[in-house]
Amino acid sequence: MQVTERTAPTLDDVARAAGVSRATASRVINGAVPVSRPATEAVRKAVAMLGYRPNVAARALVTRRVGAVVVLVPETEERVFSDPFFSRAYHGALEAFRHTGIHVLLSMSHPHDGVDPMLAFFQSDHADGAIVISHHGYDFARAVANSNRPVVFVGNPGVPGLAYVDVDHARAAATATRHLLSRGAQTLGTVTGPMDMFAGVERLRGFQQAMAQAGRSGHLTAEGDFTFAGGEAAAFDLLSHHPEIDGLFVASDLMASGAIRAAERLGRRVPGDLMLVGFDDSLVATQSIPQLTTMENRPDLLARTAGQMLLEKLNGRQPESPVILPSRLVVRDSA
Amino acid sequence: MQVTERTAPTLDDVARAAGVSRATASRVINGAVPVSRPATEAVRKAVAMLGYRPNVAARALVTRRVGAVVVLVPETEERVFSDPFFSRAYHGALEAFRHTGIHVLLSMSHPHDGVDPMLAFFQSDHADGAIVISHHGYDFARAVANSNRPVVFVGNPGVPGLAYVDVDHARAAATATRHLLSRGAQTLGTVTGPMDMFAGVERLRGFQQAMAQAGRSGHLTAEGDFTFAGGEAAAFDLLSHHPEIDGLFVASDLMASGAIRAAERLGRRVPGDLMLVGFDDSLVATQSIPQLTTMENRPDLLARTAGQMLLEKLNGRQPESPVILPSRLVVRDSA
Repeated sequence: MQVTERTAPTLDDVARAAGVSRATASRVINGAVPVSRPATEAVRKAVAMLGYRPNVAARALVTRRVGAVVVLVPETEERVFSDPFFSRAYHGALEAFRHTGIHVLLSMSHPHDGVDPMLAFFQSDHADGAIVISHHGYDFARAVANSNRPVVFVGNPGVPGLAYVDVDHARAAATATRHLLSRGAQTLGTVTGPMDMFAGVERLRGFQQAMAQAGRSGHLTAEGDFTFAGGEAAAFDLLSHHPEIDGLFVASDLMASGAIRAAERLGRRVPGDLMLVGFDDSLVATQSIPQLTTMENRPDLLARTAGQMLLEKLNGRQPESPVILPSRLVVRDSA
Repeated sequence: MQVTERTAPTLDDVARAAGVSRATASRVINGAVPVSRPATEAVRKAVAMLGYRPNVAARALVTRRVGAVVVLVPETEERVFSDPFFSRAYHGALEAFRHTGIHVLLSMSHPHDGVDPMLAFFQSDHADGAIVISHHGYDFARAVANSNRPVVFVGNPGVPGLAYVDVDHARAAATATRHLLSRGAQTLGTVTGPMDMFAGVERLRGFQQAMAQAGRSGHLTAEGDFTFAGGEAAAFDLLSHHPEIDGLFVASDLMASGAIRAAERLGRRVPGDLMLVGFDDSLVATQSIPQLTTMENRPDLLARTAGQMLLEKLNGRQPESPVILPSRLVVRDSA
C-alpha cells in the first residue's frame, strides 16, 4: 500500500494495514482498554509504517481544546522527586497518552504557596483534564472536581461521583498481616500512612480486620506520613513503648526502610528480632537491607489506567469506575 | 497597623510595615534581583503579617494572562527523575516564583513522542513563559524562541538574542584539569558530555585549553551522555584503550560515578591508580565511594536566576543577559 504525499493516512488505512477493525485501531490509538496484545502491536506497527498522525484525528475531539492534560500531585517537589512512587506513576500516565499527541504536564505543590497556584491553573482554561495523585483530605478533591473538567483520581477521593482507580488497600493489608501471623509473629503492630489519606485509613482497617479475625488486638499503631523519616520516627516511637512487638506491618516501603533503621537504633535485628512487611514493592524494597517482603502496588499501572479512563472522558464517554487493581504478596527477606 | 476586611493590603502597606521603599518591596515580591537579605526578610514578614496577596497585584501585569509558567526539560522522565540536577533546578525555579501566585509547571519529553507535544503546548496560548533546562542542539531552542513568548534558558542556547544564565563551563573545566595536573597526574583524559550540548562542548574546550597551557595534549577523550551508564561505558572504553591514563576529568558527577565502576572493572583503584574529578557537586558526589572531587554547579541557583529573569520579562522589562555564575573546586577523595 502506498501513501502519496497529498493524502495523510487515515484511521481506516491503519486498521487495514494492521488487519484489525476500525474500532480496535481507534481503541489502541486512543488508549482505551482492553485490546489484545497482538492487535495492539499490529496497530502500532501500522501507525509507524504509515506515518499516521493520531493528533490530527485527536484534534477533532469535541472536548479536547488545549491538547494537554496535567498530572496534579499536591505534594512538594522534594517528596515527588524522592519517592519512586511518583516517577513510576508519571511514567504510567505518559504511557496512556502515547501517540495521542496530547501533552502530559506535571504539576506539584509549591513549597511556600501550597496547592493554590496549582488549583488556579487547573480551574482556568489551560488543561483539558487531570489525573490526580496523592491527594490528602477531601477539600483538594472537591476543588478539582468543581472545575467541571474531566478528572480521574489515583486513589479513592472519598467524594461520591468522582472517577478513580485504586488498589484494594484493606485486602492487601490483611494479606500482609496474615503473612506475619503465619510466620509466627506473636505481637503485631503497624506504622500507618497519613490518616487524611484514603490509602492510610484503609491499610489500617485491613490490618485491624485481619487481627480481629485471628482473635488478636490491632491497637498497636503509630501514624507515619509515607516518608523515610516519618516511618523511622513512628516505628521508633512504637517499638520503644512496646518492645514486645515482633511483627510490624508498615504501610509503605519507604517508611519500612525507615523502620529498619529505627529497629537498628534499638538494637533489634530484622527479621530475627522483628519481622516486617512493607507496601508498594518499589525500588526501595530491593535496595533496603534486608530486602523487604511487601505488597505489590503498581503506581505505573494505576496511573496508566487513570490516563486511559481520562482519555475516554475526553472522548465524551463515561469510563467504568472505580477500577480496583489486585495486589499480591512479594516475599523477600524481612518476613 | 490594622487591616479591615474590606480593604486588601496594598504594596504600600507592605513597604511601610517592612520599612523599605515601595520599589524594594516590589522587587522582593516579584523576585527581581538584587535585594539585600535583611530587606528581603522584612518584606516577607510584612507579607505574611498583613496577609498581602501578591497574585492580586500580579494579575494586573499586562503580559501575564495564564498565571502559569512552565519549566521545559526536553529529556525523558526517566532521566529527569534519576539525575538530581533536575529536581534541584526545578526547586530553584519554584523559589523564583514564590509568593507571586504564578504556578510553575514541569514539562518533559514523552518517551515515544519526543518533544513535539511539549512544543505544541508551549506554542499555543497556555503558559505565559518558560524556563528551558537541558536542551540539545539548536532546533529546540529555536522552536521555543519562535513562540515569541518570554523564555529564559539555563545553559547557553547557542542562538543569538536569547536570554540565558549559565556557569563558566570552560573556566571550571580548566580548574578541574589543573587540579589533576597539580596532584601529579601524568596522562590525562576526559569523559565529555554530549557534543550537541553547549555544556558538553565547553567543558571539553576548558580541558583542552588547560592541557595546552600546560604543554600537554588533550586528545584522550570519550563522549558520554551525562548518565551513569553512559559515563561508565565511555570511561571503560577510554581506560581500556589507554591504560596509561592516571587522571580523568569527567564532565558530570553521575558519569564520574559510572567511571569509578568502569575503573573497578578494569582492576584500577580511585584515587590510587586513577585520579578523578567530576562536575556538579551533586548528591552523587558525596554518595559515591570514594567521594568525588568536583566542580560546583548550582542548578537551583541557575534556575532561580532564570526564573527571576523570566519574571522581569513578564513585567515587561529586559533582564541583563547572559548571567554567568562562578564555579569553584570542591576537593574530596577522588583526586
